[in-house]
Amino acid sequence: MIKELTTKLRSGDRQTLAKCITLAESHLLENQQTIHQLLQEVLPSTGKSVRIGITGAPGVGKSTFIDAFGCFLTSRGKKVAVLTIDPSSPITKGSILGDKTRMEKLSKNPAAFIRPSPSKSFPGGISHATRESILLCEAAGFEIIIVETVGVGQSEFSVKDMTDCFLLLMLAGAGDELQGIKKGIMEMADLIAITKTDGDNVKKAQQACTEYQHALHLIRPNDKGWEPKVITCSAVEEYGLDTCWDLISKFITHSKESGTFDSTRGEQKILWLNNQLNAELRKQFTHQDVFDKKWKEAEDRIKKNEWTVFDGVRYLIS
Amino acid sequence: MIKELTTKLRSGDRQTLAKCITLAESHLLENQQTIHQLLQEVLPSTGKSVRIGITGAPGVGKSTFIDAFGCFLTSRGKKVAVLTIDPSSPITKGSILGDKTRMEKLSKNPAAFIRPSPSKSFPGGISHATRESILLCEAAGFEIIIVETVGVGQSEFSVKDMTDCFLLLMLAGAGDELQGIKKGIMEMADLIAITKTDGDNVKKAQQACTEYQHALHLIRPNDKGWEPKVITCSAVEEYGLDTCWDLISKFITHSKESGTFDSTRGEQKILWLNNQLNAELRKQFTHQDVFDKKWKEAEDRIKKNEWTVFDGVRYLIS
Repeated sequence: MIKELTTKLRSGDRQTLAKCITLAESHLLENQQTIHQLLQEVLPSTGKSVRIGITGAPGVGKSTFIDAFGCFLTSRGKKVAVLTIDPSSPITKGSILGDKTRMEKLSKNPAAFIRPSPSKSFPGGISHATRESILLCEAAGFEIIIVETVGVGQSEFSVKDMTDCFLLLMLAGAGDELQGIKKGIMEMADLIAITKTDGDNVKKAQQACTEYQHALHLIRPNDKGWEPKVITCSAVEEYGLDTCWDLISKFITHSKESGTFDSTRGEQKILWLNNQLNAELRKQFTHQDVFDKKWKEAEDRIKKNEWTVFDGVRYLIS
Repeated sequence: MIKELTTKLRSGDRQTLAKCITLAESHLLENQQTIHQLLQEVLPSTGKSVRIGITGAPGVGKSTFIDAFGCFLTSRGKKVAVLTIDPSSPITKGSILGDKTRMEKLSKNPAAFIRPSPSKSFPGGISHATRESILLCEAAGFEIIIVETVGVGQSEFSVKDMTDCFLLLMLAGAGDELQGIKKGIMEMADLIAITKTDGDNVKKAQQACTEYQHALHLIRPNDKGWEPKVITCSAVEEYGLDTCWDLISKFITHSKESGTFDSTRGEQKILWLNNQLNAELRKQFTHQDVFDKKWKEAEDRIKKNEWTVFDGVRYLIS
């Protein structure tokens, strides 16, 4: 089975890719083992894509942007995979099932692959299988992997830890556009794009672009020679998509030349190892049915100041 | 022994407090057990202080500021404890042994307690005992706990997770003052103070203050009704210290009224529980002598793309 899966995956078969990601997302030991073996098989052919994290508050037009940007990239001959991590909670207004229709053009594009991952079941907001999914997409020959998140949770920090370039989408608005965005996200961005620069919005967007560029210059540490850029774009008018790709390419070239590309990828892997080891140890431990109940009790007592954290740990481990 | 320690600690005896923190920092199981029992004893009298995190790049004048600010607070009748987390690495130019002399006035102040904690031995830059030290200081009757870090590592994020208010110190400079500061720190700040607003610096500092305030307004999400403020101050001329304390008090009042003070403290405790449980599980596991060697090997092979992370975890756990 693994041999067949591997061959089909390497040939770029999208159904096989989808199936592999489903296996990676599965919590069944058997499926996990299959995917771990498969990843070992395809490992040499992974790591060659450009991994782009894209985030932005609800309403900023992430799907529309990715739809247009993805099509722009495929028109340049690139194979593009989009992994969306969209917590299906009311606050994000994200619709898991609607993801493919949200990217109408791209979803019909033979050079593109779109995969929505419900993060609902994963505390922390990030799918536990996103890193695996990235490797699987690479093995299937995708050259650009876009990981999309909504900028309201902790997941952006995780996405930063698994991508090469971090793009923040923003609206030119009444100054409230950052309301929903988690603190720290702005400073993580390698590139900021003001979306919906079309129609009546153009002037406002251009002004916001200048202002943000100035503020970023002032407020953000210059990161090993790369100063984050702010650009304007419009998915509807397909404006600014070339500049966006141009800057991402420049950033990648810059970080490859400075050595940060490789060192960051190395650090990301070790971080993953670390997290995976913790998760495995924790899983072996929390495997017991009583754990949830005990955790709840520890949480309650600690919050009420009846127990110290050490009392809690002792209780949980006993 | 615990009864005696508890009584002396509660009486505010500084030598006992220092001894207790040493016990908390010790890795000896016996000392750990003593301190855990003691914390259980004093738990009801903890949690009543205002916990302030202070950070800033090397050279910004953190010690001078805390020296002056601490004296200002004691002159208002407050008991002030300062915990400094100063990695003794060359990059920070921090001197552990020099900490007390770095805060010359405050170290002689009977209403103050200063405790430098070398973080060198703790990966991640934060002392594993800082949270415990905060509780111990509170039990000893200190009403304001200042946790000082240098803004160049990951420790600031941890400090944010154990304090109520986060103050960033900055210099008005040539625009390079952020060079050493970690990304994301700026957005974490509830309050920014431009230090060394004295002599020839005044005009430049005031201008920087206005610019940063504008940039923050633009760039930082408004956090549950609190807009981070930027102020100027001078430790030498004791200027701006009252404004600083005034704003911290306002921020605390604001977060108590909005309910975020209590909810954040609750979340911080649960995060601590979570980390402590992971650390304990990991410790039980990595206790073996071979672990370091095995970790090194896994790291190498993963970085060389010979192993997947899952191969690494399997190897480590086997």
